[in-house]
Amino acid sequence: MVDAVVRSHTPATSKHTPAGGAPTAPHSADEAQAVEASEPRIDLVTVNDLLLGTWAATRREARELIKDPLFWRVDGLPMAEHRERALAAMHVLVENNGSRRAFPEKFGGLNDNGSNIAGFEELVLADPSIQIKSGVQWGLFGSAIYQLGTEAHHDAWLPDVISLALPGAFAMTEIGHGSDVAAIGTTATYDPDTDEFVIHTPFRAATKEYLGNAGLHGRAATVFAQLITGGVNYGVHCFFVPIRDAAGADLPGITTEDDGVKGGLNGIDNGRITFDQVRIPRTNLLNRYGNVAADGSYSSDIPSPGRRFFTMLGALVQGRVSLDGAATTASALALKIAVTYANQRRQFDSGAGTPEVVLLDYAKHQRRLLPRLAQTYAQAFAHDELLRSFDGVFGGRTDTPAERENLETLAAALKPLSTWHALDTIQECREACGGSGFMAENRLVGLHHDLDIYVTFEGDNNVLLQLVGKRLLSDYAKQFKGKDAAALARFAVGQTAGKVFHGAGLRQLGQNVGDLGRTARSVERGLRADQQHELLAGRVQQMVADIAVRLRPASKLSPVEAAAVFNENQSELIEAARAHAELLQWESFTDAIAKVGDEGTLRVLTWLRDLFGLWLIEKHLAWHLIHGRLSAQRGAAVSSYIDRLCARLRPHAQDLVDAWGFAPEHVRAPIASGAEQERQDAARAYYAALATSGQAPVSEKAVKKH
Amino acid sequence: MVDAVVRSHTPATSKHTPAGGAPTAPHSADEAQAVEASEPRIDLVTVNDLLLGTWAATRREARELIKDPLFWRVDGLPMAEHRERALAAMHVLVENNGSRRAFPEKFGGLNDNGSNIAGFEELVLADPSIQIKSGVQWGLFGSAIYQLGTEAHHDAWLPDVISLALPGAFAMTEIGHGSDVAAIGTTATYDPDTDEFVIHTPFRAATKEYLGNAGLHGRAATVFAQLITGGVNYGVHCFFVPIRDAAGADLPGITTEDDGVKGGLNGIDNGRITFDQVRIPRTNLLNRYGNVAADGSYSSDIPSPGRRFFTMLGALVQGRVSLDGAATTASALALKIAVTYANQRRQFDSGAGTPEVVLLDYAKHQRRLLPRLAQTYAQAFAHDELLRSFDGVFGGRTDTPAERENLETLAAALKPLSTWHALDTIQECREACGGSGFMAENRLVGLHHDLDIYVTFEGDNNVLLQLVGKRLLSDYAKQFKGKDAAALARFAVGQTAGKVFHGAGLRQLGQNVGDLGRTARSVERGLRADQQHELLAGRVQQMVADIAVRLRPASKLSPVEAAAVFNENQSELIEAARAHAELLQWESFTDAIAKVGDEGTLRVLTWLRDLFGLWLIEKHLAWHLIHGRLSAQRGAAVSSYIDRLCARLRPHAQDLVDAWGFAPEHVRAPIASGAEQERQDAARAYYAALATSGQAPVSEKAVKKH
Repeated sequence: MVDAVVRSHTPATSKHTPAGGAPTAPHSADEAQAVEASEPRIDLVTVNDLLLGTWAATRREARELIKDPLFWRVDGLPMAEHRERALAAMHVLVENNGSRRAFPEKFGGLNDNGSNIAGFEELVLADPSIQIKSGVQWGLFGSAIYQLGTEAHHDAWLPDVISLALPGAFAMTEIGHGSDVAAIGTTATYDPDTDEFVIHTPFRAATKEYLGNAGLHGRAATVFAQLITGGVNYGVHCFFVPIRDAAGADLPGITTEDDGVKGGLNGIDNGRITFDQVRIPRTNLLNRYGNVAADGSYSSDIPSPGRRFFTMLGALVQGRVSLDGAATTASALALKIAVTYANQRRQFDSGAGTPEVVLLDYAKHQRRLLPRLAQTYAQAFAHDELLRSFDGVFGGRTDTPAERENLETLAAALKPLSTWHALDTIQECREACGGSGFMAENRLVGLHHDLDIYVTFEGDNNVLLQLVGKRLLSDYAKQFKGKDAAALARFAVGQTAGKVFHGAGLRQLGQNVGDLGRTARSVERGLRADQQHELLAGRVQQMVADIAVRLRPASKLSPVEAAAVFNENQSELIEAARAHAELLQWESFTDAIAKVGDEGTLRVLTWLRDLFGLWLIEKHLAWHLIHGRLSAQRGAAVSSYIDRLCARLRPHAQDLVDAWGFAPEHVRAPIASGAEQERQDAARAYYAALATSGQAPVSEKAVKKH
Repeated sequence: MVDAVVRSHTPATSKHTPAGGAPTAPHSADEAQAVEASEPRIDLVTVNDLLLGTWAATRREARELIKDPLFWRVDGLPMAEHRERALAAMHVLVENNGSRRAFPEKFGGLNDNGSNIAGFEELVLADPSIQIKSGVQWGLFGSAIYQLGTEAHHDAWLPDVISLALPGAFAMTEIGHGSDVAAIGTTATYDPDTDEFVIHTPFRAATKEYLGNAGLHGRAATVFAQLITGGVNYGVHCFFVPIRDAAGADLPGITTEDDGVKGGLNGIDNGRITFDQVRIPRTNLLNRYGNVAADGSYSSDIPSPGRRFFTMLGALVQGRVSLDGAATTASALALKIAVTYANQRRQFDSGAGTPEVVLLDYAKHQRRLLPRLAQTYAQAFAHDELLRSFDGVFGGRTDTPAERENLETLAAALKPLSTWHALDTIQECREACGGSGFMAENRLVGLHHDLDIYVTFEGDNNVLLQLVGKRLLSDYAKQFKGKDAAALARFAVGQTAGKVFHGAGLRQLGQNVGDLGRTARSVERGLRADQQHELLAGRVQQMVADIAVRLRPASKLSPVEAAAVFNENQSELIEAARAHAELLQWESFTDAIAKVGDEGTLRVLTWLRDLFGLWLIEKHLAWHLIHGRLSAQRGAAVSSYIDRLCARLRPHAQDLVDAWGFAPEHVRAPIASGAEQERQDAARAYYAALATSGQAPVSEKAVKKH
């Protein structure tokens, strides 16, 4: 039981209490390998600090607060009660200064954007409904007032927004227009006779839809509408519109409807709002980026309507940023539950007369959980980078148009991958826990229900990736202004990604990746870090170049034909964007490792990074083979490298999920509480006692042999 | 609008009413292609008959019954009310003879096994809780009495089982043992002094768990326990044990607990049962396969304990069979909703000045939905084959040990693929419908919640595939008794799958596939049917042969080492089983096409089959490349073949989902009701009227040009 001895060593310096009971003694199918792999250990404190990232202090503060059960999701609670519970929890957040971090000192805030997002993300551990309802109130409704409005708006409304005296809805999406915000139908027509805007829903498809706080609690809404003055449509702008009176009744001209039961997040009162010629003061236009004077004349500091529109939307990027972080934390929680259970639950003996095998000793079970754990680590590191970019731009330190654009592209790249990963990981964990995983008390199904919508809200994932793809194409095209298709194709061949994308403002591919040499020794007979990087980066570059070549003729076609050519390449453009995001995650992981001093931590995290890299390469193995990046022989070996890494990492799996530092109040799932270990121990004790009692029945087979 | 004209042609002979409103006029991004592809049309009646299969009459009867809203799932219903509603619906089923089809004429039944399963499967359209609670009562609890008991048991209990006067639980799974039934801990010890069995739960892990009807409604249970008599354990047998009195209180020695809220299926009262020395008459042993006489002596017609155990389990295969069918029907329903919506919802204009594009005209959207539709078709045909096999065995016409084993292997192969496909398809449809897809009223989230557990109950999918893999290996090994590894490897190379598996009892690979020549012309420049078949079948054969070679040395190793070698190959063995199941589905699809006389139907379904085949090949493209089955050049073309097929099938998508024949009472989702089309039409009418009124605001850009 060498392995058990190693496992019971918990660093004395650990500052987190491992949830899920005492460290377990995994029974390894390959003892020799486990012993070999167990020599290094991660330092839990070091890794916990790495995972919690730049705003670790805020995350720990938020985690302390949500140890209070009033924040916890109650399964099976009727919708109406869940909504009231979520609202009540938000009031407690306010009392604990959880709502003001992003706002100016003037309003009691900290003006600390990164910390604000970090704090909200942790709420996903308590109840995703609270996370998202908070996001609606302070991240969308409040941010619209703060980011799109000016001082008078801030003074008038922000104090009540922060204190939750004024709950509000963020009315952008319409029944007929989700991702395509520019095409919304709601109109805001200026009437100079009364100095008012008239907000109107001209047809049913223009009804505002799916708005949190619109179903019940909201008193006002930030409404996106086509601004029309003097017979000219100046495009989408945002307006502050009261919707309910103090008693909760719809104001004149306002019709709200309740969306009713949803697939999850039922603590949020989503609903619809229809406007029938609703008049609001002219000054309710949130006029930071565009204003209408009393005489109806329009002015803006941003002359280009397109750039103005995207500037306004970009001011609200924090929704995407926070979903990336919350999805990553939720994935880690699911893995904490499934790995803990898999280290305690036994099923089938191996046919070798040994005790029943714990689930995580099955190679397939390792394959199901460990690569997903590797990606979750990569996401945590990539997210911290995203959050630092966000904090730089919104804190004003790096607030340039180029940095804003980079931030938006990075958010659009990372949010799709992490939110899809959350659903995939939570589902795999659910299945890996069998029937237990389907019980609401074990959290996994609730997490899946609640996070389901993350993949299509705050930007549909496919639409976001398409945006990223277009950005990659346009960066690429900038290199070849005026060159013809053949020259472009010739150029693409053999270029490093870093050169092609140089100056593109995105992470400079092929650069800034920490110390590849130092970690390169990790996989014997495998693909070294530099080889992983070359494959991942080369794929992005080649895919973009290939699509650019195929789209090149479109410039000479009619608009209809050009649209058809683009449509033919849509799937691949989305794949290229995904490849780009994967590369960014891999690079973030590699950079994070470069900071590690502790030798055991470095070694284990390097294996985990290698597992992530090889998993990505395996996912796209056909591409690498077709494009001659890997020979058939080396391609065939990728899967066995992954199996090898899984076996190596298997003894570290519990450490790697414990390092997230979730307390029992965050985990809560009975199957990860140690109860399964107690049951297994009781069963083994029963059989041991029976055997020594001499009362044990003999087997039929044994009788027949006589 | 040639396309619209074609679309409005609905065959006059159609016997089903298309749900989801009138046929729509899709706007194709490539009109020429749509016109070309629209020339053939499927005949809806023909395809509906094909899809409903051998027991179409029963399916239509069941669908008529569940048009009554009392059967419909009500979203957000509190658990307690949902449970009562499901029970009430089952009483209505009884009144309409929905519970007796499988049982003997003696009890008012039809002794019609295939029809029975077909009828239950359709209930998934109403409320999966009703489907599964019915399955527990009549398919598990009732079947255990019928299949494992003898005449006295039938006479005593079946009438009340059928009438629902005696609701019961099927107590096999324990907290500590799910898939590994042989290792359950519950004991049934014979006491000759009182002529009773003593049923006992010796430790917490042996508590019966997740049992439908155990939480609340069940009055008795069929309990699986280790049969011990005369100091010998004869292995797992099944016993009839009363658990509650007429007032619903636990009987002495019985402790039931409620599982509470689950991820779905909350209309079922799952729960736990613990037995504390519960005494039942000796004759409550369901003794068809093993009996204990009054003196305690054990007898069985099946001398081998192992074969006896598997015979008893095999008698209950119908659960897996019915999940395969229900999962397929649920997938079809999800696609009906998503395709209908995608033909009506518009998002973004193409940049070509044309109207906004309907979702299904986006290449990526086609890629998301159409291959899944193709697989759903394949599953329907494969399921009918499975159901015929089941009906043959259980109806006694083909009830041989070999046929039983084949049936069990076929069920174990198909159920994992179709239940995973259901989750994947429902989720993709949910996302493809955006925010609407997350609203409970649109059905998709509820279907996902309810079907989630299908992938791990009635046999965990990975465990089932592993069983199939072992069967493939043992069939393979039979060919090479006594040959050494090298001979085996030499033999494997170049053999056709049909020869390798000849006599294996599974579907004879490479044989019985209908008329490949006739359908081979389908894909110009693509992979013909015979090429698809060769790739799919060759992959199964090669994978099994490779694993066999790698496992060969295990016979010379110690049990512990041999277990380690097997574990190293576990993932790949599961993959081989999946490849086998995929091949079976492809062959079933091809066989189904061979029966089609109508030329348009033949052509469109052949494209759909090709799409399925190519999708499978694309999924495993790296394997085909590594093993030299496809050149890099041909491999690279697979994706573009798929794109081409998607574009061809796009104008037929509505027909292909309408052909399932779901009535509005089965679909129920507002987004597939035509409401979206009405909203879109109203929006376009508004803009058209505005344009002609002369009141339309001009755009800012237009003003600036002046």
